[in-house]
Amino acid sequence: MITIYGMTNSGNCYKPRLLMAKLGRPFRHVEVNSDDRGTRSKEFAAKNPNAMVPLMEFEDGRLLAESNAMLLHLGEGTRFIPQDSYERALAYQWLFFEQYSHEPYIAVRRALLTFPNRKADATPERLEATMERGNKALLVMEMRLSEASFFAGETLSVADVALYAYTHVAAEGGFDLSAYPAVTDWLGRVESDPGHVPMDWLP
Amino acid sequence: MITIYGMTNSGNCYKPRLLMAKLGRPFRHVEVNSDDRGTRSKEFAAKNPNAMVPLMEFEDGRLLAESNAMLLHLGEGTRFIPQDSYERALAYQWLFFEQYSHEPYIAVRRALLTFPNRKADATPERLEATMERGNKALLVMEMRLSEASFFAGETLSVADVALYAYTHVAAEGGFDLSAYPAVTDWLGRVESDPGHVPMDWLP
Repeated sequence: MITIYGMTNSGNCYKPRLLMAKLGRPFRHVEVNSDDRGTRSKEFAAKNPNAMVPLMEFEDGRLLAESNAMLLHLGEGTRFIPQDSYERALAYQWLFFEQYSHEPYIAVRRALLTFPNRKADATPERLEATMERGNKALLVMEMRLSEASFFAGETLSVADVALYAYTHVAAEGGFDLSAYPAVTDWLGRVESDPGHVPMDWLP
Repeated sequence: MITIYGMTNSGNCYKPRLLMAKLGRPFRHVEVNSDDRGTRSKEFAAKNPNAMVPLMEFEDGRLLAESNAMLLHLGEGTRFIPQDSYERALAYQWLFFEQYSHEPYIAVRRALLTFPNRKADATPERLEATMERGNKALLVMEMRLSEASFFAGETLSVADVALYAYTHVAAEGGFDLSAYPAVTDWLGRVESDPGHVPMDWLP
């Protein structure tokens, strides 16, 4: 059985949990926090030198890091990876958009405001920069979702799972989603897709 | 024929050029800089609302953003995507590592030091933070390359193309690669792989 090391309250860690739940695949969850007894411990660094969760461990001990890599791997051969070559390319595009242009602002601003160990980093400059860049990412999403129901093709894919993870808790980072009606509608469509589970769901 | 909009001197833009060259596929290069007449122009924003290069335009007008998404798309069915499922997952892992843990520090520090329009952002704090995180990324790469010849499997893959792009010019960002002998050896292996072209190569 697959083990997923992760934090319950992390959107990145929620992504593989949500996809595993939707696939109906059993797995073991091990809570690992981003502190000296968690991702910064020697034991964890031996498994992931990049010291981050989530981390996936297969039954034979092989390891896989990076939440969006897990989605692509777990999604292979399922309805979550578009069959059309161009739509699959768009899924890749939005997964990289999520990690480069979305997560570093929307997820990070939420962490700065709500995680006690990030409080010292929450300078006014940092909060302003993440607000500006986070809103830019939401605007790019709004433009796509004004033309299409999902990010890569006509049905939900791994790109939607990835972007849902932190967008649905963007308000905790101070973002006002009422300014993004197409994004808000899409959040509802993701939640209506079969097998949805909330972020605090554990197996 | 595919058109790639990009900057000659950008590692992200180099990635699809390098893979297209290795694949022997013809394409058209259109130079677009990250300024008001380039990625920030209205014309370009109509093609890519996220206002970034590279951007790929197919003959029928369809568009694809995100350098690593281009690598996955162009690489499908070629030797650059591992056939083994786990090795393919590792390729995904290193592509996301590159965009999240490597490019924002190694590429950004090079831009801060060498791009005139980034000079104002090159504060001592920013230079120190990118140096620290960039060296962390290089150490993670060094650990992998001390055990394996390439990032995902026994041969060169899209993960190596992606990580090569900014690692081979890391010295321009002030990074000392002599501290990373396995990384240095790997740079040579990438350059020896058939069809290699340098960053300033254009079709």
